[in-house]
Amino acid sequence: MAQSFGVIGLAVMGENLALNVERNGFPISVYNRSREKTDAFMANRAVGKNVVAAYSLEEFVASLERPRRVLLMVKAGKPVDAVIDQLMPLLDPEDMIIDGGNSLYEDTERRVKTLEGAGFRFIGMGVSGGEEGALNGPSLMPGGTRAAYESIEPIVKKIAAQVDDGPCVTYIGSGGAGHYVKMVHNGIEYGDMQLIAEAYDLMKNVLGLSHQQLHEVFAQWNTTEELDSFLIEITADIFTKTEGDTALVEKILDAAGQKGTGRWTVMNALEMGVGIPTITAAVNARIMSSIKDERVAASTQISGPDGKITENTTLWINKIRDALYCSKICSYAQGMALLRKASETYGYDLDLGECARIWKGGCIIRARFLNKIKHAFSENPALPNLLLAPEFKQTILDRQSAWRDVVAMAAQYGVPVPAFSASLDYFDSYRRAQLPQNLTQAQRDYFGAHTYKRVDQDGTFHTEWAKETAAV
Amino acid sequence: MAQSFGVIGLAVMGENLALNVERNGFPISVYNRSREKTDAFMANRAVGKNVVAAYSLEEFVASLERPRRVLLMVKAGKPVDAVIDQLMPLLDPEDMIIDGGNSLYEDTERRVKTLEGAGFRFIGMGVSGGEEGALNGPSLMPGGTRAAYESIEPIVKKIAAQVDDGPCVTYIGSGGAGHYVKMVHNGIEYGDMQLIAEAYDLMKNVLGLSHQQLHEVFAQWNTTEELDSFLIEITADIFTKTEGDTALVEKILDAAGQKGTGRWTVMNALEMGVGIPTITAAVNARIMSSIKDERVAASTQISGPDGKITENTTLWINKIRDALYCSKICSYAQGMALLRKASETYGYDLDLGECARIWKGGCIIRARFLNKIKHAFSENPALPNLLLAPEFKQTILDRQSAWRDVVAMAAQYGVPVPAFSASLDYFDSYRRAQLPQNLTQAQRDYFGAHTYKRVDQDGTFHTEWAKETAAV
Repeated sequence: MAQSFGVIGLAVMGENLALNVERNGFPISVYNRSREKTDAFMANRAVGKNVVAAYSLEEFVASLERPRRVLLMVKAGKPVDAVIDQLMPLLDPEDMIIDGGNSLYEDTERRVKTLEGAGFRFIGMGVSGGEEGALNGPSLMPGGTRAAYESIEPIVKKIAAQVDDGPCVTYIGSGGAGHYVKMVHNGIEYGDMQLIAEAYDLMKNVLGLSHQQLHEVFAQWNTTEELDSFLIEITADIFTKTEGDTALVEKILDAAGQKGTGRWTVMNALEMGVGIPTITAAVNARIMSSIKDERVAASTQISGPDGKITENTTLWINKIRDALYCSKICSYAQGMALLRKASETYGYDLDLGECARIWKGGCIIRARFLNKIKHAFSENPALPNLLLAPEFKQTILDRQSAWRDVVAMAAQYGVPVPAFSASLDYFDSYRRAQLPQNLTQAQRDYFGAHTYKRVDQDGTFHTEWAKETAAV
Repeated sequence: MAQSFGVIGLAVMGENLALNVERNGFPISVYNRSREKTDAFMANRAVGKNVVAAYSLEEFVASLERPRRVLLMVKAGKPVDAVIDQLMPLLDPEDMIIDGGNSLYEDTERRVKTLEGAGFRFIGMGVSGGEEGALNGPSLMPGGTRAAYESIEPIVKKIAAQVDDGPCVTYIGSGGAGHYVKMVHNGIEYGDMQLIAEAYDLMKNVLGLSHQQLHEVFAQWNTTEELDSFLIEITADIFTKTEGDTALVEKILDAAGQKGTGRWTVMNALEMGVGIPTITAAVNARIMSSIKDERVAASTQISGPDGKITENTTLWINKIRDALYCSKICSYAQGMALLRKASETYGYDLDLGECARIWKGGCIIRARFLNKIKHAFSENPALPNLLLAPEFKQTILDRQSAWRDVVAMAAQYGVPVPAFSASLDYFDSYRRAQLPQNLTQAQRDYFGAHTYKRVDQDGTFHTEWAKETAAV
């Protein structure tokens, strides 16, 4: 009997998704380029499961019921194109390829066109949740034609994480929409992680908290409606791991990479002219972390303040919590504004409330607070910015004083808080009718005759600002 | 008799460069796609000059002495390729095309390969200085083969701005090096302009300075070794222009564009993994300025602090000056670090001291302070970062307290200072041996088994951080 679903690529994400599909009642076929991986899978995790191993793509394709549904879990970029090229001659009309890797949305856009144009179907599907999510229920972001989505809907609805208001999957939109939304999800994840890192830095280095205390603070934050989330939960866990007398986290090199989706998010936002300064600061903070040797050398030559705060510790912990939460709202406001602009620009027709809903379970940024975002966009799908949503506006107004105290304190104590600062500057820029770029425009008109617009009249103006100046 | 130099494209930059070349003793030919421009030029500004007008490219090429030297001053992008395609069949071996527009360095890289491969010569030359610089002496950044540069050296050395240590031109490097350095120059220009805008915002809105006072402050800053510069000078000028009782600058719409080289600089830095947060914040600030309607709407819904500082005004003005100067040093440190990385990555073999020197005159960022940068790299060509140069290290150490006060004050008073903050966070990140990305790495290992490195052992490690967790 033919199998319902095929998976190509048996690295850990592929294996786990395959087992997830099988566990939910869909017999699967698997194929991996190197035979050893397939053999190992069959001899171990696949034992007793309804799994057919194929050792050639021909055999793999032949084992599947039609129209075929083939999930690619191979490295993003050229490997995806290579497998597609090998598969296409073997497939029949209506057969579907689903790319579940972290592909660039522009590649997905192109592949949808090529495959659908050739009579096949193609879905670009963002998958978030890491290994554990892939096995037990990820957040899934499939994009492509609606018809293609409908033919995998019964499967993806079962394998996705299940939360109070349904499975963490929905039809995202046309073309590269699925991978686009996954990219922005990852950008937001960069922001969340950096904000947590800054809170940790301040509490450890300015407030002098021990790792046991840090554990307790994050564990407590994880019980609050605002911050209850996977990333806060694992942060609390991390501080409990010790090695001898030391927390293991202190043995880890403070140098993080940033080669993928976070960087793409920032570049895309620049192209579209959407401000996402918190996410940008998070990507940049990883870059700064990566030049460890230079930093170590500089630290012996450039000194800064090294005071500690020893009084009102609880008060400061709460202020840092408020700063974290306000900054987090700004980061999501930026991410959602980017999604809105992409939806208009690329015609994705995104439902922003649904995007927030499917992130509630399975994925790395899952958090109770996403309920509020979902609700904000359900109430007002045209909401221009999350900062204006009733769910968030009053919250920030109530906490902005604490937030400002933390950013000011960090500046005085010499602790870099690029994402806290970028968030506050975003808030203070967004809520201000008047920014100082009138001066920028005057300068540009002065030196380059770039012209300017006025606040009181329509049209384009140029002024001869200088008296005759000599050559420089 | 044949003319020495040809210029294609008679927009204002092209006209002015043409007249500059002619004034320096090189007879010129000019060509413009539309005849009217050429006629207007000949009937007005070219009267009495040694200028030949050509009305076809054939006629233009025929009018030039060999090997021909043709400067393109047409819009960057496809127009440059279009003119090159039309010119190539008309040129002879060794003839040279110089692209003086704001081309993307990657396009220049490609054109150098194509043209030099076909037996011609090609120079991509950054030109900075606006209209006035083009006419009276710009800063010129030519890249390509050294042989090609040498054949235009006698001309460019004459038309460039002249400063105490020579003309503001040098051979920058191979391929797209000239346009690359011009791109980074423009990124730095974005940073300078944003830092000035933030100083203006604080002095106007928190200190309550009048425009007359703002004029006096910037005029005074322009007399100091640190801040004496073209941009500070024109800022002082701008505040003197009034319209009735109001400073004209207050009538200008506070919405600035950011479609060009500033954005390219940020995207390239992301690709190369070099942190340039001040320049990035400057580009982003323009984006935030551009959503004027959203900001005006938000300003009626979201309130912030609105206090003023009415005491110690002079003290605060001086602190803002120090914050501006420290931030400016950070911005240049980032730009020079980006140039260093590009030099290694693309094989440009840049002389960073020379880059600083040729910016001393003609261009928008010309400033006395570039002497210090030139000197820092002359003393130590391997200097990893300007923050470590003796010229700057002590200056920042002496002023960091004022800088921190200003960033803290801005946070408390609700004025966004994204570039001041990003600069301080850069400084505090660069000088710190330990950043909190060890936690980031622990999180990534926790949820994605990404592995981590340790501070005390070589190798790559993975930890099972969690106890068995339930599916989410």
